[in-house]
Amino acid sequence: VSSRFLFINNQFLPQEEGVLSVTDLSIHRGYAIFDYFRTVHQQPLFLDNYLDRFYASAAHMRLPVPFNRPQLKEVIQLLMQKNNIVHSGIRMTLTGGYSPDGYGLVEPNFILTQQPLQLPSKEAVQKGIKLITYEHQRQLPHVKTTDYLMAIWLQQKVKEKGADDVLYQQGGVVTECPRANFFLITKDDVLVTPAAHILKGITRAKLLALAKQYLKVEERTVTITDFQTAKEAFICSTTKAVLPVVQIDETTINKGVPGPLTLQLYHAFTALEKQYTTAV
Amino acid sequence: VSSRFLFINNQFLPQEEGVLSVTDLSIHRGYAIFDYFRTVHQQPLFLDNYLDRFYASAAHMRLPVPFNRPQLKEVIQLLMQKNNIVHSGIRMTLTGGYSPDGYGLVEPNFILTQQPLQLPSKEAVQKGIKLITYEHQRQLPHVKTTDYLMAIWLQQKVKEKGADDVLYQQGGVVTECPRANFFLITKDDVLVTPAAHILKGITRAKLLALAKQYLKVEERTVTITDFQTAKEAFICSTTKAVLPVVQIDETTINKGVPGPLTLQLYHAFTALEKQYTTAV
Repeated sequence: VSSRFLFINNQFLPQEEGVLSVTDLSIHRGYAIFDYFRTVHQQPLFLDNYLDRFYASAAHMRLPVPFNRPQLKEVIQLLMQKNNIVHSGIRMTLTGGYSPDGYGLVEPNFILTQQPLQLPSKEAVQKGIKLITYEHQRQLPHVKTTDYLMAIWLQQKVKEKGADDVLYQQGGVVTECPRANFFLITKDDVLVTPAAHILKGITRAKLLALAKQYLKVEERTVTITDFQTAKEAFICSTTKAVLPVVQIDETTINKGVPGPLTLQLYHAFTALEKQYTTAV
Repeated sequence: VSSRFLFINNQFLPQEEGVLSVTDLSIHRGYAIFDYFRTVHQQPLFLDNYLDRFYASAAHMRLPVPFNRPQLKEVIQLLMQKNNIVHSGIRMTLTGGYSPDGYGLVEPNFILTQQPLQLPSKEAVQKGIKLITYEHQRQLPHVKTTDYLMAIWLQQKVKEKGADDVLYQQGGVVTECPRANFFLITKDDVLVTPAAHILKGITRAKLLALAKQYLKVEERTVTITDFQTAKEAFICSTTKAVLPVVQIDETTINKGVPGPLTLQLYHAFTALEKQYTTAV
């Protein structure tokens, strides 16, 4: 662990030396954006999609990125070479900077970190997960900010309920999990996922494209009453790929086991990932 | 500046050495609370009220404070002695800690910082300020978290409109400014201020107590249509005390000058402050 490096602003440093002054607006005012992608056999997965989103988040939050895309890709490559981790997650963070008055935006701080990362095991996929719902709408949901205040706070509730994660809803309209997108398969075998007020995941986009090849797909309003009649449910994210949902609050989905279409999508995504990381 | 100190976890350090590892949950997930009080002639103003709120915020966010109240007061006194600033603002920050998995709460980091601080000048008070409204409801509004994502982001809009600050409303119901509470004086000389979905300011509580001695006071729902008939308006906060509002969006208040009852409250608060800081 002590030999791992990070990159901060303009230099590579041993990870334990990666610090920010307490005047940084991320600490002072919660003002920062980030993005997070996987590397598989030392190859970044769907990197351009993640960079698109990172630059879009930065632009929306008025944070100039100190590197253009080729420069950023080069820094990522150098960090990967230094750390030499087979399967990893790489996080790019951009903060509001060292604000003299603790409020106004100044030159951002940029941080690149890398950790070993494995997808959930086959056992975890075969078991599925349990969600609880909670009434909350993330602010600026389309931007990948570091605002996980509610998510961190809700961890205790999730634990108390014996659940694995939380699914946000507002007035019965379902949006997303704190770090994952949500999908249902209806009784008519239509794959549905919330269309609005969410962060549009890269894995979500890849799955929608895959699913369209053999399923009817709808991005639309999903409500908590849709749980009752759903044949299957799952969440997806960069760190989880496809993870079946077998219970939401008191509603058991597909008799408590992962559904066949969910598992088909899981395998389709795994195949896509393999194809992508050998082709690059 | 270089001789100023801060306190972090268990030691006093020159302020420029005050850093957190980038694994801290405040940087990683925007998870932290804080509070902020003034010192006047080296005496903390209404300290117990601020400590009440700080401990309440910490408890709500499941962040154990590493010091009990007498210990915390002692650290504050020591920092004040070291820095020797006549009029200052002191900030207590408590973060989610250095989380190994970047998500779960661990032992918090505690930071105490002090900066010189003066209230707005008499000229600023006599001029008054202009607000714009914006549709937003803060999450966990009763807790003093570091979530100022929307506030920082809105600064550019405030500037573009030639305004001084933003006033949040949701569906026409007014709540608060990002760092201040909002008050109106109605045509019938009633002092009104939003009752719910706000952070209950210490200055707000002091002003309500003062105003009740000579005005009718109501904590109730305030809507944007109330601006039309309001005789006066002002905001209050720790750093601003009482600051008259002379315009909200396109509505001019009291012909664009601070109202007499507002100025009376400003003077009453100034007198209370004087009384408190000489009596302590």
